[in-house]
Amino acid sequence: MPDYKPITWIDGHLRLLDQRRLPQEVVYLDYWEAEAVADAIRTMVVRGAPAIGIAAAYGMALAACQSASYGVSQALDALERAAKCLRQARPTAVNLSWALDRVLAKAHAAETLDAETLCTVVLEEAHRILEEERQSNLRMGEYALALVPDGARILHHCNTGPLATGGYGTALRVAIAAHQAGKHVHVYVDETRPRLQGARLTAWELQQYGVPHTVIVDGAAAYFMRTVGIDLCVVGCDRVAANGDTANKIGTYQLALAAHAHGIPFYVVGPTSSIDLSVASGDLIEIETRPPEEVTHILGQRMVPEGSVAANPAFDVTPARYITAIVTERGLVWPPFSKNLIRIMGSADVS
Amino acid sequence: MPDYKPITWIDGHLRLLDQRRLPQEVVYLDYWEAEAVADAIRTMVVRGAPAIGIAAAYGMALAACQSASYGVSQALDALERAAKCLRQARPTAVNLSWALDRVLAKAHAAETLDAETLCTVVLEEAHRILEEERQSNLRMGEYALALVPDGARILHHCNTGPLATGGYGTALRVAIAAHQAGKHVHVYVDETRPRLQGARLTAWELQQYGVPHTVIVDGAAAYFMRTVGIDLCVVGCDRVAANGDTANKIGTYQLALAAHAHGIPFYVVGPTSSIDLSVASGDLIEIETRPPEEVTHILGQRMVPEGSVAANPAFDVTPARYITAIVTERGLVWPPFSKNLIRIMGSADVS
Repeated sequence: MPDYKPITWIDGHLRLLDQRRLPQEVVYLDYWEAEAVADAIRTMVVRGAPAIGIAAAYGMALAACQSASYGVSQALDALERAAKCLRQARPTAVNLSWALDRVLAKAHAAETLDAETLCTVVLEEAHRILEEERQSNLRMGEYALALVPDGARILHHCNTGPLATGGYGTALRVAIAAHQAGKHVHVYVDETRPRLQGARLTAWELQQYGVPHTVIVDGAAAYFMRTVGIDLCVVGCDRVAANGDTANKIGTYQLALAAHAHGIPFYVVGPTSSIDLSVASGDLIEIETRPPEEVTHILGQRMVPEGSVAANPAFDVTPARYITAIVTERGLVWPPFSKNLIRIMGSADVS
Repeated sequence: MPDYKPITWIDGHLRLLDQRRLPQEVVYLDYWEAEAVADAIRTMVVRGAPAIGIAAAYGMALAACQSASYGVSQALDALERAAKCLRQARPTAVNLSWALDRVLAKAHAAETLDAETLCTVVLEEAHRILEEERQSNLRMGEYALALVPDGARILHHCNTGPLATGGYGTALRVAIAAHQAGKHVHVYVDETRPRLQGARLTAWELQQYGVPHTVIVDGAAAYFMRTVGIDLCVVGCDRVAANGDTANKIGTYQLALAAHAHGIPFYVVGPTSSIDLSVASGDLIEIETRPPEEVTHILGQRMVPEGSVAANPAFDVTPARYITAIVTERGLVWPPFSKNLIRIMGSADVS
């Protein structure tokens, strides 16, 4: 087992592995304030829908515990302020709001207690969210095992490993779990422009787990489907709407279209905390626009000529009809998603 | 009119605009030997199917004229050696072989002359190839004008402007010609990893011509089709097989699939010198594999972790069924391509 820790609570504060500096350097950054955690989420020190939910929960713990000496009502005020700040850090992944709402509900339920206990309650809820995501990752890998034939060539977009989840990973967990179960798999790693999460992070994580892989440019995925042959695509999700439409890293939709044209199964893998039944369809999901410099500049050098502009949507929406199934910690969700997502969200956790 | 000159013959030698250093620097490199021209093609100082054909023809002129003092048979031997060297520089674009074969045929037809005249004959043939490509570019732009509605949002992959053609461009000419004809067009520029010909070269050329444009990552094309709306896609071609299957820059096939899914016209634009009736289908076209470092490294820095490998096919094949029409200097070619490509190749040039 690799020993890197994307998100840890240590000596009363939050420690994050700085994902912007991988794979060149393994550097950890320490956080003592919720505002700084919001900034870490915004600048992508930590990224990946489940991971930013967990980091936000710990941001809330920092806010609650810092106010513990002031009394309960001040601590609750601080929590509300922290939640507002953290919620605005990134708009697309629903896990962020999900984690904040969960921590806030727990805090309000405990408001008759003293502020020090409130700190403990919030911190324990953050620990619980992390631990649940970890267990949930393992179950997704188990449920998906039957989807991966021996010898499978798996195409993966962006990064959905331990780094993105604080645990074992979602879509990438599918490949790692199959590998650990003794299946021969080979992962084709979309480099994932503009931030190269595939080239930098996914390749690095697959190395840690010893899973054979090949990095390719995003535009080459269809070429490999048509020539080498790809057996399945796996991607994560930032938000799944009630009808199954899925927001995920830019390039996911284009990959889904290519998979569809080749008759290749296209699996979305994510925890139920990424499912948002309050949003009827993908068209209603807010898509984050990130700075154009992520496209125009590489390593600080301008690649696009001065005076030309770039557009940088960070996510896209894949309509449900291009998704074969959604793998969650409660099991596989098959179409019709409108019906089956409600069913799985209403079901008890099997753990 | 912009005044940059991708390929010029000046003072008895070949001058190339170094496309690897754009848009940061406009630097010209001088060539006096065919082998050096082959190296310039291999290392992509000059790239783009029509442009490498023209550069190779001038490489032949350098070989012929250098041998002019030795006599005709030595000059012909030098030409054969130069052709062999140049032909191996890059395998996929048929324009390279097409230009070499054309120059060789001319030289052999003139072999009763003295070596100095042979030098003139070869050089004049190279000039003729350049001039024909220039005129051919203009005609493609005219034929394509009817395909571009006013207000069109045009998606373009790689670079197919003057830089790629030594003239006015092929697919990019379509956008420039429409703009010059007073139509409002906006070009969405695929950055085109791994070498960023779109971000670096196409954006730069569109700036020179004052055509409004936005650079996007390759994976975002389908997102823009689904949200902003794209009216047509235009791409160049490195080789069109007899059945219409088209080899072009990696990412073209994936783009064609996305266009197909959205019902967006997908036009291949190129001179008849890119059409190879000797190749029955795209599956028989040799696809160049370029060094993995083009994917793993950016600006000399390793992005993919040490120990991970990358695959780097430089081209892919788009099956004919995803191509709406092929725009050539002799007019538009519509399906069925197997029939209509033979017809257009047998037709007289309309010029």
